[in-house]
Amino acid sequence: MSSTAGRVSVVGVGPGRSHWCTPAVRDRGAAATDIVGYGPYVDLVETWTSGRLHRSDNRVEADRARHALDLAATGRDVVVVSSGDPGIFAMASALIEQLDAHGDRWRQVDVEVLPGITAAQALASRVGAPLGHDFCVISLSDVLKPWHVITRRLAAAAAADFVIALYNPRSRHRPEQLADAMAVVARHRRPETPVIVGRHVGRDAEQVTIVDLRTFDPTTVDMSTVLIIGSSTTRLLDRPLGVRTYTPRSYPDDGAVPKP
Amino acid sequence: MSSTAGRVSVVGVGPGRSHWCTPAVRDRGAAATDIVGYGPYVDLVETWTSGRLHRSDNRVEADRARHALDLAATGRDVVVVSSGDPGIFAMASALIEQLDAHGDRWRQVDVEVLPGITAAQALASRVGAPLGHDFCVISLSDVLKPWHVITRRLAAAAAADFVIALYNPRSRHRPEQLADAMAVVARHRRPETPVIVGRHVGRDAEQVTIVDLRTFDPTTVDMSTVLIIGSSTTRLLDRPLGVRTYTPRSYPDDGAVPKP
Repeated sequence: MSSTAGRVSVVGVGPGRSHWCTPAVRDRGAAATDIVGYGPYVDLVETWTSGRLHRSDNRVEADRARHALDLAATGRDVVVVSSGDPGIFAMASALIEQLDAHGDRWRQVDVEVLPGITAAQALASRVGAPLGHDFCVISLSDVLKPWHVITRRLAAAAAADFVIALYNPRSRHRPEQLADAMAVVARHRRPETPVIVGRHVGRDAEQVTIVDLRTFDPTTVDMSTVLIIGSSTTRLLDRPLGVRTYTPRSYPDDGAVPKP
Repeated sequence: MSSTAGRVSVVGVGPGRSHWCTPAVRDRGAAATDIVGYGPYVDLVETWTSGRLHRSDNRVEADRARHALDLAATGRDVVVVSSGDPGIFAMASALIEQLDAHGDRWRQVDVEVLPGITAAQALASRVGAPLGHDFCVISLSDVLKPWHVITRRLAAAAAADFVIALYNPRSRHRPEQLADAMAVVARHRRPETPVIVGRHVGRDAEQVTIVDLRTFDPTTVDMSTVLIIGSSTTRLLDRPLGVRTYTPRSYPDDGAVPKP
């Protein structure tokens, strides 16, 4: 380890559009000597940095984290770029896990995290304010956690009438689980509960639709999709586009969850 | 209603610092003919807009929303400014509630929501990545919802081992409820569970501390505070400043929640 140790900033550029990337992130990207990240995210930063670009595959988060920390240990000023918010199901935990496992190796490296707009916020803003009341954010990926933990959390969140945002809802390797997950939620929600489906939110290919628990089709969903499932109080407006749904700030005084 | 109806954009400037305000929000604020909002938030926009400023009290959200919509109905290009993310316990739901209650009055008005960094993200980034795994966001304010709904949600979130972010944790009008809320959580968490306390996050007066469930003192908390309570897997690092805590992406295979 060098005595002239540098810095690693784990930054989030938001969900794709540069107009959602904060000035703090942009300034750090512009000043960095090195940009480390999954190829498509590095592409987003390329036009506004003179740093060296280190593109990696999306599956090698631990390697990428160690590479960034090693670069910083030689005095480099490194930005690790993530889409969305790096602190929400993204690179920040992956990098800090390495610090935690091998703390002494990078003790002199300064590490910071810069927040970004996460996909659930971006999707919510496209249709109104479905996250306007208490909500949960759950990743359906069972690569790093057991499926029964996921279904237990879904059941708890649904029974307590949280709005639920789902990340990583479906992949080629687990095509059937999303239907099971929605069935868990449906035990506690009416069939007409709004389900907001956002694909490629913030990108040119963006597709946002509002369906309901009854008409939702899991096969339309892939890893580029984020879902928001309304609570019992989430309402639809009679408007053709833009602001069409929201969860009111107030909650009925009896506090009862309407049964399906 | 005018046939030349305008637009209302409900925007979030993030938690105080201009370097967290997205270009999308800044561009809308700069182009607006009118800026409507709680005084301190309007102050944040004042330097980069030539629009007319309409400052209001923080307690009159419905009046402010109707005022903005009425201005837009006369053809004005109105920005309603909120701190944080307007879609998360903020102005977006308040405004859409008015649209929902009096839809025909503003049918020609174009309404949009632009997301911002919310306080929990900002606080999380200051200390690492405590929101790196499934989490809930709960407002403890019982102005608009019954307290028993809040405690039911806390119990559900704690039992299912979510990380929990708490907004509006304590006010002068309800000084005792935070201790009750933490007691609900403590029934499902170990005493050494990290509690991250952020006051005025993103502002000059920012204070961020990490305590635990045992040492947490509710009397240090006010309405300018946001709290993040770790899950059973949230870990502390032996580092003096900056990145000091995170919730790993992986979850133990037995899925058991360690009992207090």
